[in-house]
Parts: sequence; C-alpha cells; structure tokens
Amino acid sequence: MDNALLIVAASEQDANLYYATRFWAPDPFIFTQIAGKKILVMSDLEVDRARAESRVDEVLSMSKLQAQARKKGAVSAGTAEVLDLLFKEHGVKQAAVPASFPVALADRLRELGYTLNIRKDPFFPERMVKSKEEVEAIREAIRLTEDAIKSAIAVIAQAEIKGEELWLRGRPLTSELIRKTLHLTLMGSDMLGRETIVAGGTQACDPHCIGNGTLRAHWPIVMDVFPVSMKSRYYADITRTVVKGKPSEKVKTMHRLVLEGQEIGFEMLKPGVNGKEVHQAILAHFEKNGFKTGEVDSRMQGFFHGTGHGLGLEIHEAPRVGGVNDILQAGHVVTVEPGLYYLDAGGIRIEDDVLITPTGCEVLSTSPRTLQLD
Amino acid sequence: MDNALLIVAASEQDANLYYATRFWAPDPFIFTQIAGKKILVMSDLEVDRARAESRVDEVLSMSKLQAQARKKGAVSAGTAEVLDLLFKEHGVKQAAVPASFPVALADRLRELGYTLNIRKDPFFPERMVKSKEEVEAIREAIRLTEDAIKSAIAVIAQAEIKGEELWLRGRPLTSELIRKTLHLTLMGSDMLGRETIVAGGTQACDPHCIGNGTLRAHWPIVMDVFPVSMKSRYYADITRTVVKGKPSEKVKTMHRLVLEGQEIGFEMLKPGVNGKEVHQAILAHFEKNGFKTGEVDSRMQGFFHGTGHGLGLEIHEAPRVGGVNDILQAGHVVTVEPGLYYLDAGGIRIEDDVLITPTGCEVLSTSPRTLQLD
Repeated sequence: MDNALLIVAASEQDANLYYATRFWAPDPFIFTQIAGKKILVMSDLEVDRARAESRVDEVLSMSKLQAQARKKGAVSAGTAEVLDLLFKEHGVKQAAVPASFPVALADRLRELGYTLNIRKDPFFPERMVKSKEEVEAIREAIRLTEDAIKSAIAVIAQAEIKGEELWLRGRPLTSELIRKTLHLTLMGSDMLGRETIVAGGTQACDPHCIGNGTLRAHWPIVMDVFPVSMKSRYYADITRTVVKGKPSEKVKTMHRLVLEGQEIGFEMLKPGVNGKEVHQAILAHFEKNGFKTGEVDSRMQGFFHGTGHGLGLEIHEAPRVGGVNDILQAGHVVTVEPGLYYLDAGGIRIEDDVLITPTGCEVLSTSPRTLQLD
Repeated sequence: MDNALLIVAASEQDANLYYATRFWAPDPFIFTQIAGKKILVMSDLEVDRARAESRVDEVLSMSKLQAQARKKGAVSAGTAEVLDLLFKEHGVKQAAVPASFPVALADRLRELGYTLNIRKDPFFPERMVKSKEEVEAIREAIRLTEDAIKSAIAVIAQAEIKGEELWLRGRPLTSELIRKTLHLTLMGSDMLGRETIVAGGTQACDPHCIGNGTLRAHWPIVMDVFPVSMKSRYYADITRTVVKGKPSEKVKTMHRLVLEGQEIGFEMLKPGVNGKEVHQAILAHFEKNGFKTGEVDSRMQGFFHGTGHGLGLEIHEAPRVGGVNDILQAGHVVTVEPGLYYLDAGGIRIEDDVLITPTGCEVLSTSPRTLQLD
C-alpha cells in the first residue's frame, strides 16, 4: 500500500478531521490513515486524552517521534520530519490531502519526495450521507433550536407598539435583547449560538447582517438561528420571520411566496435531483410573480442567495442547493431557506432542515411559520 | 510594485484575516493587499455588508469579476481565475501568503505563473504588539471572565461534602453544572465560553480534559475559562484551582509551588527576555523542590505544558512562553499558567494574563488565587 490519507489541522476548525477521529482539540495535530489504519500524532498535552477519547487505531507521541527524527539526523524535527519518519516506516510515498492542506507543509513534504494528491471537497464524500445517529443528533439540535425561537417569538409578541418602534416594559426592544434571549435559552440546553441574526427593518435586507438597535413595528424581523450542540457537535439551522403590527401587502405577498418556494423545495427534493434545478424552480416562481432578483440602486435585491446547504458537523457543508450542480442522495440533510429582500419592504426568509429519504424528503423542523404576531 | 499580500479564508476561522480587515464572515473570501491598498472580493451575499463593516480600501464583487474572467475566456472562473484577473490588472507577479494557505489554490496560482512567498507565522508580526484599544478589549474580557469564575467558585463553596463527593441542594454537584453556570454567566455579558474546563479528581491531571461527573471533595478542581468577547472578538484566559474540603499536604505544596512559579514568571517577563528561559526557570523551581516532570506509568506527570502563550484574537497566538525561543516585547499579552499534575494528588493550574510593559509586566487579572474554600 503506497497511499495514505493525511490531514494536519485543529479538529475544532476542521470538521473532516473531527469526523475521521471524533477527537476535539483546539490546536493542530497530525491524522493519517495508512492501509485503513487511523493514526494520530499528538503533543504531550493531548496524547493521553486522545488515547482515551479518539476513535482511531493508534495514538503516537509527537515528542517521542521528534526525538527519533533528531536521532536519525533531522536538524529541525517538525511536522514534516515526523511524517517522513512515519511514512518511511510504512512505505508510504504519496498521500491524499484536502484542498485546504497548508501550503508550507505541502511544500516541505514535496521537497522530501512525497506526492500529494489533492482530493477535492467533500474530502470524505460519505460524510454527506448521515447515519441514523447523526440524524438523531441533528433532530435534537433542531428541537432545542426551535424551543429557543419560540421563547424569542414570545418576547416579541409581548412588545408594545410605540410609533414605529417596538417597546417592552418601558424600554425599546432591541435586536441585541432578542439575540441574548436566544443565546441564553440555547446555552441552557448546551447549544452554542453565535452571530445569531435578529434583524428588522432594512437591516434584514442584508441576509448576513446580524441586526442591532430598536426593532421596528410593522416590518418583518428575521431570526436566523444556527447553533451547534456542544454535546453532539452537530448544527441546526432554522429561520423564522415575524411581524409585530400590521405588515404591508407587499410583505404579506413576499411571505406567501417564500412559503410557496419552500413547498416547491420540499416537493422536488429527493434522491437523484440536482440541487440547482430546485433552486432555479424557486427563483422562477418568484420571478413569475413579479419578484425579481438583481442589483437595484447598487444593492442586491430579491432572492440572491442559495436555496440551501448541507448541514451536519459544519453549518455550511456539501451538498449545495443553489447555483451549482449537486445531486441529492438519501441521507443528505439540507436546509431549504428561500428569501426575498427589498429595501422598500424588508426581508423575509423561512428556513427548515430536511432529510432526503429514499422517496422524497422529511422536514425535520416543526415550528409554525406564522408571519403576523397577535 | 510587484508584490502583494494574499489570504483566502473565512475570517471567523482566520484571525489574521480578521485583523487585516475587521470583517467577520463565516465563509471563505479573498483578501489581498497591493501597494498598500487593501482589497476584498466578496460574494453577492456579503458584498454590501463588507462595504459597510470592513476596514479596507475597496470591496469588489466576486460574481462581477467571475463574469469578467469568463468574458476573457476562463473556462471555470474560480478563485484563482479571479485573482489572476486582479493581479494582472495591478501588475502583481508574486504574493506573500500564510503558511496555512490552501495548497489547492496555491498549486493553481503557481500554474498560472505566480510566485507565492510563504511567510512564516506570525504572518502579521505587529499583531503580537497590542494597541491601547486591544489591551482595553482584553482587560474587559478578563474582567467579565473573572466575574464568571467568582460565581462558579461561590457555587462550589456552597456545596456540602458527602463522603468523597460534593453535593448541592440534595444532588451531586457536577463538572457539567459548574460549566453551565460559567457559560450562562459569560453569555449574559456577551462572552462566549466553550469547552470550558471544570475538572476535578484525576481528570484534572489531563490539562485539556474538560471534566465530567460528580466533583470530588478534598481534591483540587481546575477551572480554566477562556471565553471570547462577541463584541470585541478578543479572548481572556484565566484558570483558578480550588478545593472544597481538606486538601492533602502534597496538594498544598503543589499549590504553593505553582504560585511561586507564577511569581518567577511575573518577575522575569519583560522586553528582551526569551520566553524559553522563563519557562525553564519555572520548571527548574519545581524540579528543585522535588516535583519532577516526565512519564510515569505511561502517563505524563509534573509540568508538561508551556508556561504561557500570546492572547488576543486567538486563544493561542504568538509569542510562546514555553519550549521554544521567543523574545518578549512591550505590548505583548501572554498568559502565565504553570501547573503540576500527579495522579496521586490531582492537578493544580493557576493562570493569569499579563501585559509586557517597557520595564516589566502588568498582571491584568486580579481575582484571588486561594486554594481552599471555607
């Protein structure tokens, strides 16, 4: 066997590495798989924990391998020299690495005579197809996320309307306060939310603007909540849009169209379907109803993001349901999140997570998609 | 000018990119600096937000550049082709990239004729020297972290001792409960804590074990709290170790030695000092007092991690105060966190954050380091 897999990264930042090892560490370490055998090389600080917690075949000590490399004459015994030692021992001459593999280490390994075969994303295609356990983890994350969204909506529902603003208990009701409500509720269930979007008024027209300041009455408030479970490491990703007050006719139409867009997605998503076709069908539905996408007054308006993305150990992972060709398979979990954004009306986005089943798809989220709060 | 800086990453994961742009985004984007001018290339989804929030000179649209590249004949207009367009326009032939630059993109740019000069970490050496604003952000993060630690210690202090266990209000007091107390208190101040260590008994002998289950009476409980401010993006990193009950003589000695180790650090740390010498002085102090470091019963015991690390936009950043040569400068902020770990006694670690001043160092954290709770 002259081939190996090789990842050098921090598993906290590299979902493929976590997927392969089920070991969570904040600092970079070596993972290699040689002839089916998974090997980690860990610092003194992590070696014992890795032996206890990781799901690999062998955990080696970096400092011991460094000492060995120095004995054999390596002047500086860094990651490349340790890999050289390991690869020589196992007769490895080439390794598959991810596209994100660090160039400095790649150059050094190539100097040492190794061939690196860059494997395009997804590095582990099997990661897209969720196991039963993984689906359960995502279901649980969704359930806790929907609970938090319900609490946040309950707070907005209690607000009073003062002129164009929402107030609560004698104070302006802000994006920040709703975000904190969400984060605290999530943290209470070991879910980590960050950069959670609570955006009203024209702020909601920028789909990644997290929102700040007093929330506006009669305008849609987009809440896009995508926390990760600190237990399972799996994400949920749910968006709800609500209006406290009286939404404009345009907003009501946008909301109806976005819901219809989701239904088109739910209908079409099944094994063998190209995500791009689903995305284009939703775009076409909006266009047909007079809601165009494009630059107006040097701002992107309409539906200018993808319909969805894979969800799992990363918030955005393969496959995509958007502008690129990606064929869906049973076991994929993807978001369905059409949106419409116009500066004269605000933003509407509704997002649910679905599991592709052998015959279609199952919507994993269950919370109501009501626009107007009483 | 034929030289440029180039980073392609997600700023949420790449502190250098955030440092250079002050723009926070979850997905990879292009940053290049040409003749001192900072340029971002952003997707349709992020282009408007980047124009509003980033601190750069120009924000370009990825989709427009892709259309241009296709017009000029590029078959697939990806990141490399867009960079090719941009670099040709500015007469750039080589670019400095970080060691972590993705190999796939590096290979493609080299194919297109560009020279990539890999710049070793720290990519921006000036990032190590904190500005007044940055020091204030770290101070604030530390203050909020110490408040959270005080709340957690107050909970442990209230525990009852039942046999070898700690109990609170009729239930076993667990690592999980203290961790949640910390996380909720932190979240209440917009500080994000994760993987926070609350480890007692022999779990604390593994410095990165986060701890689980019922806490043990009479044994040290290590709380290593390193949240990031969701406002400023700067980290704090503070560790306290407490015992509820009666610590053994060995533990008391370990605690005294660790405090003395910190004092050695505080005394020695100043501009021009080599971090390695500081680390070795602390190690020598432990050894001299009979507390050795090394493998015993196939487990690392003693003081087997570094004395400290730089702190800022990353929890672990340059410079190091440990096994490597790193010269301290005024404006560096580093942790000082000696520890001693023995399976027959437990773990002790005390960690404070210091600012290197022109004449020495200032300890930025102020909370008590008392071992035994009443």
